[in-house]
Amino acid sequence: MQDKPPVERKCPYAESIRLVGNKWSLQIIKELHLNNRPMRFNEFMKALKPVSSKTLAAKLKELNRCGVIKKQIASETPVIIRYSLTEKGKELTPVLDIMANWNRKWENTK
Amino acid sequence: MQDKPPVERKCPYAESIRLVGNKWSLQIIKELHLNNRPMRFNEFMKALKPVSSKTLAAKLKELNRCGVIKKQIASETPVIIRYSLTEKGKELTPVLDIMANWNRKWENTK
Repeated sequence: MQDKPPVERKCPYAESIRLVGNKWSLQIIKELHLNNRPMRFNEFMKALKPVSSKTLAAKLKELNRCGVIKKQIASETPVIIRYSLTEKGKELTPVLDIMANWNRKWENTK
Repeated sequence: MQDKPPVERKCPYAESIRLVGNKWSLQIIKELHLNNRPMRFNEFMKALKPVSSKTLAAKLKELNRCGVIKKQIASETPVIIRYSLTEKGKELTPVLDIMANWNRKWENTK
């Protein structure tokens, strides 16, 4: 019997930054957090201006794939798709609250 | 007397994401947080591979300008420059801890 290959444990700090530590992902999560309701593609387009539709679509797909947001088909005809935070995604909202409080506290310093 | 122009208050969520919500800034803060000591340019180069020296220099400058890290000249000849977290920067480390714990908790889910 062969030995199992060693399990390579990734650094959870680096991994979480890789998954959600970028401006578009954080802004998508922020919009869903502050609006507190499912949102449509065009609402993100407006809120995240000047994001391109290609970038936004890729980011929504990525966040959906890693389980941070979920895609719901709200209507078939006409097709209405909405995105919302999953439980996993909601657990990231304290990150944004801490960052916002940090900004409030320090905004008048350099 | 003229009226003062209205003070435009920026959204602290958007502002904090703009300042530090990007992968290189978060990785620089993470390195200083986990190593818990001042670091040199080349140490960041190695830790943040494959960052380019141009990008790294720009990010360090940006974080220094907004008061998240400080630059210390540790020696004049030869010139040794080290970077460390300021008090303002240290207050961002809970953000990284929450993200890492979130990753540990959810890493085996999609």
